[in-house]
Amino acid sequence: MTITSPANPRLKTLLALRRRRTREQERRTLVEGYEELGLAMDAGVVPAELYICPELMGEQARTGGLVQKAGELGVDLVQLSRAAFEKVAYREGPDGFLAVVGTVDRRCADLDLPQDPLILVCEGVEKPGNLGAMLRTADAAGVDAVVAADPVTDWGNPNTVRASKGTVFSVPVASDTSAVTVDWLRAHGIPLVAATPDTGTTHTQVDYRGPVAIAVGAEKTGLTEAMVAVAQHRVRIPMVGRANSLNVATSAAIIVYEAVRQRG
Amino acid sequence: MTITSPANPRLKTLLALRRRRTREQERRTLVEGYEELGLAMDAGVVPAELYICPELMGEQARTGGLVQKAGELGVDLVQLSRAAFEKVAYREGPDGFLAVVGTVDRRCADLDLPQDPLILVCEGVEKPGNLGAMLRTADAAGVDAVVAADPVTDWGNPNTVRASKGTVFSVPVASDTSAVTVDWLRAHGIPLVAATPDTGTTHTQVDYRGPVAIAVGAEKTGLTEAMVAVAQHRVRIPMVGRANSLNVATSAAIIVYEAVRQRG
Repeated sequence: MTITSPANPRLKTLLALRRRRTREQERRTLVEGYEELGLAMDAGVVPAELYICPELMGEQARTGGLVQKAGELGVDLVQLSRAAFEKVAYREGPDGFLAVVGTVDRRCADLDLPQDPLILVCEGVEKPGNLGAMLRTADAAGVDAVVAADPVTDWGNPNTVRASKGTVFSVPVASDTSAVTVDWLRAHGIPLVAATPDTGTTHTQVDYRGPVAIAVGAEKTGLTEAMVAVAQHRVRIPMVGRANSLNVATSAAIIVYEAVRQRG
Repeated sequence: MTITSPANPRLKTLLALRRRRTREQERRTLVEGYEELGLAMDAGVVPAELYICPELMGEQARTGGLVQKAGELGVDLVQLSRAAFEKVAYREGPDGFLAVVGTVDRRCADLDLPQDPLILVCEGVEKPGNLGAMLRTADAAGVDAVVAADPVTDWGNPNTVRASKGTVFSVPVASDTSAVTVDWLRAHGIPLVAATPDTGTTHTQVDYRGPVAIAVGAEKTGLTEAMVAVAQHRVRIPMVGRANSLNVATSAAIIVYEAVRQRG
């Protein structure tokens, strides 16, 4: 099947998936980009639909075998003209790959944990770019699960998917209320380390060996008082500068990698 | 002075500063936002011009005293209508503050170093957002200087200024060629630690006490071979995931904060 007109009604269904409500109703979202889609498919994701534009593909995308793999999996394949593709692409410099995939819809209770898990809890994070960046860190660091507690942004947000480079499909993620998340951690005997400026303990003074969950909060307001109150440890990252604020994703990376160092 | 028409020619001079060539010719750039401008002025920056739009200001911006402070410093103050301000604002959700300031134009040789400096070298970094994020980290961590080596993005890029939250004016920054940067480090007896995936040494296995420079490379290609070759230490951040790539600003933060931990 080929679509050449940017006015084709099928393209509207793709644009509709940029809205959270549509994503939640249809339980589907978008993955754009050869690399991101490849990572999702490596993690076992089978797209419902794959839209391609050969004219926009670079050498790697054209010869990388992803279209063939999708074909073998029976994916509904649609070729778009450049004008049509550029209408539905949502990132700068599209590379001719856009897929519709099922959203990740998991609660804390759905997560399978290994022994002594390392967990990252992101409470109330607003920006898809930050949530995605934390997933890349979690992927690299071998974090066993990432929980969005009281999330403002959903895991299915196409900008989260993009910023995560597709790791949202390979890292075990869940979303739940903060209250349920805290209960779940307690039930599994997992101590919580809360990142907050209001403590004298720095992030390197805590023992992260054994089971542990690291919690970071919303961009502007940080963790809720409730989350800080129930934490077994409160830690701050030492800061000496004028701006006195690290980005939440940067903070998460610094603490997670301190845990990785200790767990060696 | 008040400008109400978005067509006023003076606004064109502001839009022109979004172009690198204009910035380099005029040695001026833009700072937008109450918080960012406040940080710049705290660091001693005196704006050449300050454009304000009271209608767009929040409570903090209206009552924070920045306009008064600028007035006392003799800053050329221009009030804009909402329509006029929104034409020149370059970020989402403008807060009614936009200033023209001198660009930071420093070479390695211009930097004053303390004893045992901690330096961050960013080679060939392309995205203003990453350069700005690394400045926030450098500010927080107390890095003594940040050098953009063979820079693709200039320190004056308004998006770098924005992403840095204004710390580009408080953290000592410089730009130079990679060759000059390496010579300068050598002349000051500062060992170089190069971040590269092609080594068995992890970033926690190196001693960062004493003088040290940490170098990270371009988003896609990393450090140049020349930079890696001259480094006293080559380190990688351990990564176990599928995507196998941390964002350059995240990588810099992880290594810089390992140095902070060791330097205690």
